[in-house]
Formats: sequence, C-alpha cells, structure tokens
Amino acid sequence: MERYDVIGLGYCSDDYLGIVPHITPFDGDTVTMLDFAHDGGGPVSTALVTLAKLGARTAYLGALGDDESGQFLLQAFASAGVDTRFIQIQAGGRSPSCIVLVEEGTGRRSIHCFRGQLPLYSLTEPAREALRSARFLHLDGHSPHAIAEAAAIVHEAGGQVVFDANRPRPHTPDVLKITDILIAAERFPTAFTGVEDLLEASRRLMDWGPRLVVTTLGSNGCFCVTPTEHFHVPGFSVPVVDTTGAGDAFHGAFIFGLLQPGWPLYEIARFANAVAAMNCRRLGGRAGLPTLAEVQAFLRSAQ
Amino acid sequence: MERYDVIGLGYCSDDYLGIVPHITPFDGDTVTMLDFAHDGGGPVSTALVTLAKLGARTAYLGALGDDESGQFLLQAFASAGVDTRFIQIQAGGRSPSCIVLVEEGTGRRSIHCFRGQLPLYSLTEPAREALRSARFLHLDGHSPHAIAEAAAIVHEAGGQVVFDANRPRPHTPDVLKITDILIAAERFPTAFTGVEDLLEASRRLMDWGPRLVVTTLGSNGCFCVTPTEHFHVPGFSVPVVDTTGAGDAFHGAFIFGLLQPGWPLYEIARFANAVAAMNCRRLGGRAGLPTLAEVQAFLRSAQ
Repeated sequence: MERYDVIGLGYCSDDYLGIVPHITPFDGDTVTMLDFAHDGGGPVSTALVTLAKLGARTAYLGALGDDESGQFLLQAFASAGVDTRFIQIQAGGRSPSCIVLVEEGTGRRSIHCFRGQLPLYSLTEPAREALRSARFLHLDGHSPHAIAEAAAIVHEAGGQVVFDANRPRPHTPDVLKITDILIAAERFPTAFTGVEDLLEASRRLMDWGPRLVVTTLGSNGCFCVTPTEHFHVPGFSVPVVDTTGAGDAFHGAFIFGLLQPGWPLYEIARFANAVAAMNCRRLGGRAGLPTLAEVQAFLRSAQ
Repeated sequence: MERYDVIGLGYCSDDYLGIVPHITPFDGDTVTMLDFAHDGGGPVSTALVTLAKLGARTAYLGALGDDESGQFLLQAFASAGVDTRFIQIQAGGRSPSCIVLVEEGTGRRSIHCFRGQLPLYSLTEPAREALRSARFLHLDGHSPHAIAEAAAIVHEAGGQVVFDANRPRPHTPDVLKITDILIAAERFPTAFTGVEDLLEASRRLMDWGPRLVVTTLGSNGCFCVTPTEHFHVPGFSVPVVDTTGAGDAFHGAFIFGLLQPGWPLYEIARFANAVAAMNCRRLGGRAGLPTLAEVQAFLRSAQ
C-alpha cells in the first residue's frame, strides 16, 4: 500500500492574478495590468504542492467540479506530484475561483473569491487507509465535518496534525483541540485570544492543545513558541512580485522540515522562511515554489 | 471561394469576470464573489461572435498566442462559427487577458487588462482575398497598421467600413476618414469633437467621413444621425447582471441589421438595442448573446 508523508484536507481554488499599479473603481478607466497569471491556490493545496516539489509524498483530500477550473486544478496537482486519487470530482460542480489584483512593487493583494458549488468532501475507506499511513495531516479549517475523524485516524496511527489558522471561525476551537502544531497568520493569535502580546497569545493557544505555535510575520519571518522556548526567526529579503501563497509555501516547507530527521526547530523555521520568500518572486501562488536544491542554494547564498 | 458578410480586424481578449458586492483594497478583507465566469471578450471579436450567432458569415483577423488564453479564444471563435483561418497564432506569444469585477445589482464594471505580448497582425494574401468578398469590415482601432489597407480593399470591392469608437486615440482621425458607419460609445462624440451637444458633435464627426453616426447610450438605447435625419431609439429594460460586451453586441447586431434587405434604420437600431440588453442578462461578454429567433421573440414580447 502507498504510504504518505503528508495528507492535506482543505481548500483548493483556481486563481487568476494580475499585477496593477492601482485598482480602478466601477465605471472607472480601464487599468493596464503589467502581468497576468493563472495558478492554483488554496492554503492546504498549495502547501501540498510545496511539499511535493520539495520531494515529499503527499495526497489531497477534497472535492472539485468537472468544470474548467476543476480540470486545471486536478492537472496542477498531478503535474506537481500530489496524489489525486482521493479527490472527489463532482459532475456539474463548480470549483472555487479567485480573482487576485496584486499591487505593483509591494505584492500586496486585493482578493475576491467565488466559493464554488460543490458537495462536502466525505472520507472514503481508501482515504481512511491513506490517513493511517500518513506522518502528518495538514488542515486549513475547510471541510470541517471531516476534520475530527481524519485527525482521530492520524493520531491513532501515531501521526500529527498541523493546522493553518488564518482567522478565527466558528469551528476553530474544535480544530485547535485536535491540533499538534499550529501555524498561524500574523493576526490570528491576537484575534483569537484577545491578547496583544504574541508570546502570551501563543501560550494561550497552546492551552487548547498545540505543543508548538508558529506565527508567520510576512517579510519579518516567524515567531516560534514551545512549552520550553520561544524565538523569532528573521525572514529573507527578496524582490517581491506577489505575496500570494507565501504563507501556504511556509506551511508546506515547515512540514517538510518536520519530516527531516534531526532538523532543529530554528532551522526548520529558517527553511520555511526561505521557501516563502522564494515563492514571492513570481506572480501566482505556486509559480515561484522551489526545489530542495534551489532552497539549499538560496540558503547558502544568504549566509 | 468563401464569401463573408463581415470581417473583423481588431481586439480579442480572454476575460475573467466576477460579481462582487464591492471591491476590496490591497491588504483588505477577502470579498466573496457571487458568481464567476470565463468568457471571450474584445470589441470586434465579440461583435463577430454576435453576428455569427445571429447567422452571419464572419471571419476574424488578428493575432493570438498559443498559450492557454489563445487556445480558449480560438475555440470560442470556432464554436461560435466565426472563421478562424486567418488568425495568426504566435508560438510563445501571450494573448490579452482581462480581469473584470462586476458590481452586484448594477452590472457596472472595474476592468484591468493585460495587453498580451504578440506581434502585429499583418494581412496575408488569403486575408486580402477574403476582404474582397466582404460586405462589411468591422474595426475597433486595434491593429492600426493594417486598417488602411484592409479598408481600401473592402471599399474597392464595394463593401463598407464600420468603426467602433470607444475613446479618442492618436490614430482615430485616420480611421474616421475611411469609416462609412461610426458607432460610438456615449462619451466619444464629445470627447473627440469638444462639442457637448450630441447632435452637433455627431455632425462634426460626419465631416470626417462617416455618413451615419450612431451613439450608444447604455440602457437609454442609442442616437442615430444621418445627413438627412436624426432620432433617439429607446433601449430595453432588463434585469442587468453584467454590462460587459453590451456595446460589442450592439455593434454586431447593428451590422446584422445592415445586412438584411430593407430594414429601416430605426428597426436596425431597435434590433441592436434588444441584442445589447439581452446580453446584459448573463455574466460575461458573450454568455448572453441570443440567436435570431430569441431576439425576434424578445422584440415581440416587448411590444
């Protein structure tokens, strides 16, 4: 039977991205885009593509439509090496699609997303079997109805759950309770706990379950908190084209580091910062993702 | 040899459209799109698709890349029945792509366009031969280097030139000089002539060459001016989803009316108003285009 390093259960979207000097209002003059790209997106799915490109064995659990976007996303997984056999394709379903306007020079984004029209993803016996083989389950809070069972299977088999928390949602407490490693967006710890201080907020989050809380800080890198230590890991300065997928690439790269025998936490975080920065050099959530050799070269040249 | 009712020389773009309650700024909260669509666009090319769907024999003259957008646009022409044999496909070229955010409820648009990276379209001998057979040449001001020769061929063979003028550009005077029928966007006559009054501005435009000037007025229909008469033709009220392509559909339908034996100018304009209105009922520049039977039923029900 196939064994997996990481199985992802979460969101996948079809992204259309343009670089613009500014955003024009309704009925305003047409703005010339400097560049345009079509790329796959979504937190868990882009993290899986990151992992696959780095060399990990991954599979995606989720639903897609058989529409143009669904076909594109399926092909993107397949060509990246993410196992697609557990994806549920809905005839007549509509896959999620996002329009992303990226500010020239800063890479800041204006995001508009169509959520799609798809049935809930439900675990099948082959998917459960795959989960039993996985070292990590990666979640972004989508497909909430399947999260508890998937996490229970992974825990039972000795694996761990990594949760990408972007903003508090109704089911966030339930997900935190089954999370081993929380990687949070910059605003999440304070938004969820109400505590301004990041160290204190991270400790409050650990009370829910996680034994490691990492908060991503954009170009400033990340902040790691365990029961025994806490430290900031500075980011890398690169010419930023587009920040889309930077966080997702960080998650994928961080899990890749966790998979490696003996990597210290600081080095894992530094590796993830590097992959996130490298991914900002191209337009699109996945276009700038590096191979392992490329990250190693980047880290050597940054020393 | 193939004969054509209308040959179009102009712009073609790949449009990605989303319906949004509002536009979010850079770094703002993600906005949920109510719907998303992928459709072909561009003034002349959408007019040709309109004509083909109504039953006219059409061909498009222009360049496309062999990228994902170019393949989509080529297929869209082919499936609509527009002859694609004169399209120049550039290996490695990038086709134009636009991101269109459409305001929920009003159909007003915020447009951002990537102009593509393609060589200039150049007339070939088969394209010249096709032009000799055409009753109308439709222009939108793109491919300006080829316009004079194409118009000369059509005129020599007894055909007429219809120009879709959206806004004044450097070569607009040259195009007006070889234009028989000008169909202008609402702002064009005043923007070009500096004259506020639409009748007077239309007459000034006729001094450049056109013997008929039609100005589209959105939901208010259109205003027609000839050397001997002038009149307003009211538009049709429909539930507007998206105004993308409304003007282009008007142009195509207007030329379709010109092709019909004995249609009075007022009826042609009313027919074009109907097609433009019908096209606003769907998201996308071409998604709402009707067949001739559908327009006839619409006009009957509107009486």
